[in-house]
Amino acid sequence: MKCKLLLDARGVKENVNVVVEDGVIKDIGNSREGDEVDCSNLVVTPGFVNSHTHTAMIALRGYYDDAELQEWLQRMWDFEKRMSSRLMRLGSEIAILEMLSSGTTAFVDMYFNPEDIKELAEKYKVRGFAGYTFLDSMLDPEEVARRQEGLRDSKHFKAIVNVHSVYSVEEDTLKLAKELAESEGTWIHIHVSETRKEIYDVKRRTGRFPVEYLRDLGLTSLVNAVHLGWVASWEIEELKKARATTHCPTSNMKLATAGAFPFFEMMEGGINVTLGTDGASSNNSLDILAEMKNAVLLQRHNYWDTRIKAIHAFKAATVNGYKLLGIKGGLLEKGYAADMVLFDASLLYPLTRDRLLSNIVYYAGQDAVVATIADGVIYSRSELVQRRRKLGEELNRELEKL
Amino acid sequence: MKCKLLLDARGVKENVNVVVEDGVIKDIGNSREGDEVDCSNLVVTPGFVNSHTHTAMIALRGYYDDAELQEWLQRMWDFEKRMSSRLMRLGSEIAILEMLSSGTTAFVDMYFNPEDIKELAEKYKVRGFAGYTFLDSMLDPEEVARRQEGLRDSKHFKAIVNVHSVYSVEEDTLKLAKELAESEGTWIHIHVSETRKEIYDVKRRTGRFPVEYLRDLGLTSLVNAVHLGWVASWEIEELKKARATTHCPTSNMKLATAGAFPFFEMMEGGINVTLGTDGASSNNSLDILAEMKNAVLLQRHNYWDTRIKAIHAFKAATVNGYKLLGIKGGLLEKGYAADMVLFDASLLYPLTRDRLLSNIVYYAGQDAVVATIADGVIYSRSELVQRRRKLGEELNRELEKL
Repeated sequence: MKCKLLLDARGVKENVNVVVEDGVIKDIGNSREGDEVDCSNLVVTPGFVNSHTHTAMIALRGYYDDAELQEWLQRMWDFEKRMSSRLMRLGSEIAILEMLSSGTTAFVDMYFNPEDIKELAEKYKVRGFAGYTFLDSMLDPEEVARRQEGLRDSKHFKAIVNVHSVYSVEEDTLKLAKELAESEGTWIHIHVSETRKEIYDVKRRTGRFPVEYLRDLGLTSLVNAVHLGWVASWEIEELKKARATTHCPTSNMKLATAGAFPFFEMMEGGINVTLGTDGASSNNSLDILAEMKNAVLLQRHNYWDTRIKAIHAFKAATVNGYKLLGIKGGLLEKGYAADMVLFDASLLYPLTRDRLLSNIVYYAGQDAVVATIADGVIYSRSELVQRRRKLGEELNRELEKL
Repeated sequence: MKCKLLLDARGVKENVNVVVEDGVIKDIGNSREGDEVDCSNLVVTPGFVNSHTHTAMIALRGYYDDAELQEWLQRMWDFEKRMSSRLMRLGSEIAILEMLSSGTTAFVDMYFNPEDIKELAEKYKVRGFAGYTFLDSMLDPEEVARRQEGLRDSKHFKAIVNVHSVYSVEEDTLKLAKELAESEGTWIHIHVSETRKEIYDVKRRTGRFPVEYLRDLGLTSLVNAVHLGWVASWEIEELKKARATTHCPTSNMKLATAGAFPFFEMMEGGINVTLGTDGASSNNSLDILAEMKNAVLLQRHNYWDTRIKAIHAFKAATVNGYKLLGIKGGLLEKGYAADMVLFDASLLYPLTRDRLLSNIVYYAGQDAVVATIADGVIYSRSELVQRRRKLGEELNRELEKL
């Protein structure tokens, strides 16, 4: 496909062909082989990675918006005890369609239905990362581990170890999670240092801050640590060993956790910072375009200056996301995954090379996304909307049964 | 039109007919007279008011994103000296189409082309409020006043007095603006207490904080005061006399002004709080749906709790906005302006009465807007997008000439 403009974290290219074969970018340049999509009026970016979400929680969108985290979480857990497996699956499928609508081609999920994620990842060719979730108040950890061991990777799915948080599991559970991650050759996805209450409770219980506690259990290098609104400077040092950290600005603001994710210090320190929407119950959208913008907005508000720029958010959502996943993706480059977003160039005015990144991060909404390509498969905007409409009606009917 | 769900700041109605005649809601209820639009699968809300913007600055979108206000402003002013009248008008027209795309049916503009706003307001039947802008460093105040006196109201346009800020004009200019507003029977639109530098400079120059200074000049009751990130508690008291205050959360965050607009205290104190996107150069979108969400997000982050809820933002963007304008609008009620937004109900899942407000404020994007009705005239999403594409291309060509 001959494309008007290509944008990735390294910069802009004009009027180049992108050749895709078997889900991989075969060539970028003058070669015209395999041209299928007319991109002459499109802007192409890499697909985005949503590094932290709870897809099934679409069913909980708008259910309980006006509370801080602890109260909110209890409400979620109460609802989830009544949730049918049909409702979880519907939520996850709708979430994938919503994420594709805003250019997300890969995601990291924390919930209780990883087998659904596996099937849906294969169905839509998006990269799904999920696992059963350790959460001692709701689930027996031995049972979680047993199920997790039965979970197998497939082409588009990879099993990861989900641990809700250090405050919601026993130390033995954390040790079990570590063993599992190491024996299965995978990593751990965990909420860390999200609220002041968490810091206080963990400090009182263990004598350490949450990241210090992870360090002492030998977990740091295994984790994608999510939220981190309340970390100390020496914890940032320790997190340099982490696989990644994930910032969820919208969810943090909506739940009034009031912290300051140290975005700049982490990026400067070489930490692999990524972005996440969190779930539909605390965001309430799964729109990574909005998340890139909000990441810059919140950080500028926190730092009282403009040190965080569009490129930081764009890198976090593309190259850094794929690095977390261990997939060669996030750049428009020969040999990289054919996960891409096609934007309507006519809507990205003023359209200049200089302003392109800004227009994608600060201005482009879902309405400017013409199509998303996941592993070489093209999903048009209208197709995604049609599917969401249909499944949304099903979701409404399913919820009425509760 | 028979509509699935109606939502305004008072609550939700189900399966009712909305009858429109001559740009006014003639009836809401069972009457089926004049049915034209099939709303059986649509959610209807009042149109939104963008109470602070600079429409012509579409041309400056993405031009200079990474600076704090004072440096940024100087860059804007430098660019504006080179701006053609054609570029301003194109920007304003595109801005109106963008605002309609996200449900905005009325707006308050501060720029140098109010005659364009008047023509465009009549062309699109949106409610435009604009005036020449007092800004002593760029324009002779006598000249501004002379032009302003030549500006006449029309059906969809009302002349207001724009003053850039207390720090960018002389005291005599503020007095002149007051005289003008009083003699013309209109009000004053002004940036107030946006940055710490402004507070410091005004205090040093006048011995007073900006709102105290407005008070002493007898201006408070005449103003829509915009930004107010840095106000003292006694200034909030004084602002109870104001016509309105406008919160621009996205712009404030992006420019790292770092203040805390006292949203809750103002609403509790009976101040008519409204919302604005600010211009495309500091936002960078003109999407009031995003602004409602960001208003809640920023305030929750500032207050460290969830006291600000969806209803506050929704009220600010609807009833409060129309109150500022002096137009009977912002509610879905007999005798009110036929300014409305039609959302695709199938995309607002989970669709229940309880979750509707949340889904509009926290989740619905432009892609869920099927059409916007301004003064009884219907604009479909696809029509708006087509027009934006066409004018966007013109804008690109015009910018290349600079």
